[in-house]
Amino acid sequence: MPSDRPAVAVVGATGAAGGTLVRILGERAFPASALELYASPRSAGRRVRTYLGDTEVRELSGDALRGADIVFFAAGAGTSRRHAPGVADAGGIAVDKSSAYRMDPAVPLIVPEVNANRLSEHRGIVANPNCVAIPLTIVLAPLQRAYGLRHVTVATYQAASGAGTGLADELDTQMRADAAGSTPAANAYPHVLHGNVIPGGWTMQGADTEEEVKVIAETRRVLDAPSLRMSVTTVRVPVIVGHSAAVWVELDADADPDDLRALLRDSPGVMVVDDPTAQRYPMPRAVAGSDDVQVGRIRRDAGTDNGIALFFSADNLRKGAATNAVQVAELLLRDR
Amino acid sequence: MPSDRPAVAVVGATGAAGGTLVRILGERAFPASALELYASPRSAGRRVRTYLGDTEVRELSGDALRGADIVFFAAGAGTSRRHAPGVADAGGIAVDKSSAYRMDPAVPLIVPEVNANRLSEHRGIVANPNCVAIPLTIVLAPLQRAYGLRHVTVATYQAASGAGTGLADELDTQMRADAAGSTPAANAYPHVLHGNVIPGGWTMQGADTEEEVKVIAETRRVLDAPSLRMSVTTVRVPVIVGHSAAVWVELDADADPDDLRALLRDSPGVMVVDDPTAQRYPMPRAVAGSDDVQVGRIRRDAGTDNGIALFFSADNLRKGAATNAVQVAELLLRDR
Repeated sequence: MPSDRPAVAVVGATGAAGGTLVRILGERAFPASALELYASPRSAGRRVRTYLGDTEVRELSGDALRGADIVFFAAGAGTSRRHAPGVADAGGIAVDKSSAYRMDPAVPLIVPEVNANRLSEHRGIVANPNCVAIPLTIVLAPLQRAYGLRHVTVATYQAASGAGTGLADELDTQMRADAAGSTPAANAYPHVLHGNVIPGGWTMQGADTEEEVKVIAETRRVLDAPSLRMSVTTVRVPVIVGHSAAVWVELDADADPDDLRALLRDSPGVMVVDDPTAQRYPMPRAVAGSDDVQVGRIRRDAGTDNGIALFFSADNLRKGAATNAVQVAELLLRDR
Repeated sequence: MPSDRPAVAVVGATGAAGGTLVRILGERAFPASALELYASPRSAGRRVRTYLGDTEVRELSGDALRGADIVFFAAGAGTSRRHAPGVADAGGIAVDKSSAYRMDPAVPLIVPEVNANRLSEHRGIVANPNCVAIPLTIVLAPLQRAYGLRHVTVATYQAASGAGTGLADELDTQMRADAAGSTPAANAYPHVLHGNVIPGGWTMQGADTEEEVKVIAETRRVLDAPSLRMSVTTVRVPVIVGHSAAVWVELDADADPDDLRALLRDSPGVMVVDDPTAQRYPMPRAVAGSDDVQVGRIRRDAGTDNGIALFFSADNLRKGAATNAVQVAELLLRDR
């Protein structure tokens, strides 16, 4: 890192994750000397207010990123593959939110609360996990360290914004159609999401969704547990922001739920919200806008030896994406 | 059963399940000689169109049910406990949708597709399982018979109408508030359900929701598998009608997913909807109004030996409640 006040660029700045990223840089007063915004030709020319002033969004071209010290990639994997190596070659660091480099052994895959120690292995590109794998590993890592993990089962309840602003906008439009008594339309996604639950919409890899494959592979990589047994089903629900998951964990040793609550309360990035009798548990509507992973419904799973069940919710645009990337950049500055 | 054209009564006729039951009796042309409707004092006096004519809903009183041959109970467990024994004593049969008698060893708990053979054990009361246990046992029974069940994990995605018309109406009102940009209110449920996912709202039994306890106990009883290991998390989602579940099944023997699809296609009450590459899978918006349990996403669970993952959706008011009860009554007539 050439400077303690790096020149920063955000690629995909007008998307769901990119827009949140620009806001979070401001919230956290990230010490950038400059902040340039890039997007697809469709969004180029738009002006965005950032904490460093009113900025015109530009179309990404060949050499645009050459002068940047840190470039956040919040666009598609193809964009990252085309432009991140050039950033690294020019001496900058690409902090990539896309899936392009997550499974590249030469690129560290970082969740700061879990494996910040691997960040120094980077050679100009740092990958960020998928928006389910980030909160999942934040919850699992303390359990892994204290008890050992034998098997993890995950059913997700994923928000529309995880598929980009297109689906979030479409969910909003569908809500208005349903409220007006007319028939909602589906364009951004294969089916109407409002008033529905969709166990698909992702590209398939054999019988699994691409999302299921990613969650398993990335969780194993972040936890450095390459053979961890995992069973995952990913499902889209009619929520704008906030991914949730029902999780069952088979531990190597018996754990008391009270001890687990205490352990998680002391873990970074976690907020324990767990008093179901008082109707307190994690919910996307409550976690949206927050950077913590809310965890609750922590209890013994009587169906499994050393089994624990829990439920979490996290803001998929913040901690599941933008906040994680900004935290990575903060670590890069600190460890300079 | 004293007659092949029984006098029928429906208790709780103006509720979500009871209203559906009255409609389904008509759809299936149930051969009733009379159909009387009962509800709480609040709804008494209302008139309902049934297939046997325009009927006034009456308040349930002491002897009202004495002349009925079949009484469907679609109200609370307390109402069933107060009135079902009297129906049985008078020679009628109470077909109970409430939880009152589900775990009573003297009362059979029936899902016609699964354990119709136990119906003859009744002594004037027949219980119907909970709206998750019914579709779950319909899906599990063929797997149990063909391969044996070792462990079942279930994460539910349950519709508002499962908590009664109050929550379904409230979800509708919340949708209108969200569409208007105003703040939705929660009264029927502890939290706003629209745009949210709520892993609670049920009464707690220790660390488990009452719903989780019911699903486990009733599934074991219907499958006659009292020690089946089960791990269940119940969650409410912003859907009006249609309960769904992500399910993982550990079998006693390895099963090929193609064989499972063929097995389930030939099983009563099941419709296989399973071509995720073509974006075909079960969804509540698609299953609402149908009597089949839609099953899809059938695949190997690589995380577990002999593991299978699947996803189902079922209309919680129809097959999850009313249709099951009417099918029970049809069996009672047939086996008379």
